Amino acid sequence: MDALELCRQGLEEVASDRRRGASQLARRCLAIIVDYARAYPAKDGHALAEAVQTLALDLRDARPSMAALRNLVDNFLVCLPQVRGQPIELARPAVMRSASEIAEQSRQAVMDASRHAAALIDEGRTVITHSLSSTLLAAFRSLAARRVRAVITESCPLREGLVLAQELSRLGIDTEYITDAQIGLFAAHADLALVGADTLLRDGSAVNKAGTYLLALAAYDAGIPFYVCCESFKFSDLSAGEVTLEQMATSELAAPQLPHVHLRNVYFDITPARLITAVVTEHGVLTSSANRSRCSSPPETGP
Amino acid sequence: MDALELCRQGLEEVASDRRRGASQLARRCLAIIVDYARAYPAKDGHALAEAVQTLALDLRDARPSMAALRNLVDNFLVCLPQVRGQPIELARPAVMRSASEIAEQSRQAVMDASRHAAALIDEGRTVITHSLSSTLLAAFRSLAARRVRAVITESCPLREGLVLAQELSRLGIDTEYITDAQIGLFAAHADLALVGADTLLRDGSAVNKAGTYLLALAAYDAGIPFYVCCESFKFSDLSAGEVTLEQMATSELAAPQLPHVHLRNVYFDITPARLITAVVTEHGVLTSSANRSRCSSPPETGP
Repeated sequence: MDALELCRQGLEEVASDRRRGASQLARRCLAIIVDYARAYPAKDGHALAEAVQTLALDLRDARPSMAALRNLVDNFLVCLPQVRGQPIELARPAVMRSASEIAEQSRQAVMDASRHAAALIDEGRTVITHSLSSTLLAAFRSLAARRVRAVITESCPLREGLVLAQELSRLGIDTEYITDAQIGLFAAHADLALVGADTLLRDGSAVNKAGTYLLALAAYDAGIPFYVCCESFKFSDLSAGEVTLEQMATSELAAPQLPHVHLRNVYFDITPARLITAVVTEHGVLTSSANRSRCSSPPETGP
Repeated sequence: MDALELCRQGLEEVASDRRRGASQLARRCLAIIVDYARAYPAKDGHALAEAVQTLALDLRDARPSMAALRNLVDNFLVCLPQVRGQPIELARPAVMRSASEIAEQSRQAVMDASRHAAALIDEGRTVITHSLSSTLLAAFRSLAARRVRAVITESCPLREGLVLAQELSRLGIDTEYITDAQIGLFAAHADLALVGADTLLRDGSAVNKAGTYLLALAAYDAGIPFYVCCESFKFSDLSAGEVTLEQMATSELAAPQLPHVHLRNVYFDITPARLITAVVTEHGVLTSSANRSRCSSPPETGP
């Protein structure tokens, strides 16, 4: 299989990936673009830009619930008009460099957001979370020395919780691993809830793995803060009514096909802004009201 | 294995059963008592009463989260003083009859409660539920002809939802089968939530399979009523702070043992009375306030 075919296969992997979060998948898209730009047999910048743009648009639309993917690819597409007039020996490295730089910005934003999130959590506190998020994992890495405790969920159907359990075990963080159904029981014993997000919507609500909304309800009922931590690349101009919540293969439920019974596997739910205490990005901590008005006013910067 | 040994084995089965609800297990206890009374080699009523009482007390304490078990066995124990003075040929049938009658009362109460619950649900409505309950299943049997729809949950770790799916499929009820994590998504599309209970506490809160509290929170947030249907044998004098929430084997989570990671498998959670629209028993529909004051005032009777 040649390099171009590998890139096309990469697109399919992004579309079907159920384990990686939006940030990781968005950067994976940029890495695929780099590989494609390196391998595509174009005679000039125009031909390269055309080919790369086609792939980039396919990648952008592969995961409609993930704003980061759309935003990072859109940021990349801005470089293309400039390279169209260039000879191929200049255009090729320019395209590759542009994609790499945006991936690096995303990586840095994740680190900065996780650092701001970690600063919210005092020594010895218990953090309850749901699903697996690279931002959250980075926050736990900062927290390992501060003897925080974690409550993590199985996160069915694919059980990303098992991966998070392994990572937290390696970090030496005292962790309770629960079924998704126990979220209510354990939220009552935690000091705060902290989750990642796949997309943050215009109205301040957060799209994340199904079950996140239940954790937010339980946190609210238990009177503990509920923080969403994500880089600002995940902000979307869509509102809750406009977003597509992806449905995945019902075979993941491993349940038999029965007459009159429809298996449902909606991967994401929407946590309304009213249940979110603050959104933590690379810019700092945005309280819920700042979050709601983030389009019209500058965000508060955190610690 | 002789009949007495079988009864002792029955006690262990009741203690470890994860699939049957409180009503079914409570009646199973009474059936074990009938078998034991039939087989126990007593010379008179006194010896029989002693032996049966020992077994009955063990059965009563086998499942501390289930008030029905305690209540039905306590109701049965009332017959024992009377048979102590009887010859064995009168005492034996008296004990067996008493246990059978109480089981029959329980069965009738379940049917009456489910009939009252079914009366709450109009044609074509969508009912969301969690876990498996014999009372609920009886309600769905009454509803099959009325073209209601159901949303049912997997109910991890042991997935009782699969059994419910089979039963509803057989009844021809249009059913959506979801993971527990999707409860929030689907509560928003349902017309009402209806669950069974293992125990109804003095303060009107309900002990049921873990995840029920999350469904109640989601129902409240979605503005749909949340009904608990159970026979009054499940009422307990304990309050939320006094009840034991059983923890089961963590092997049910099928997760690896990792350093610093503690697997937790708490089977039941408590749904506070403030989230319960009404409790439906064999006596009818008790609204939440009536439910809260049920010790001091007569219940409202339903339709």
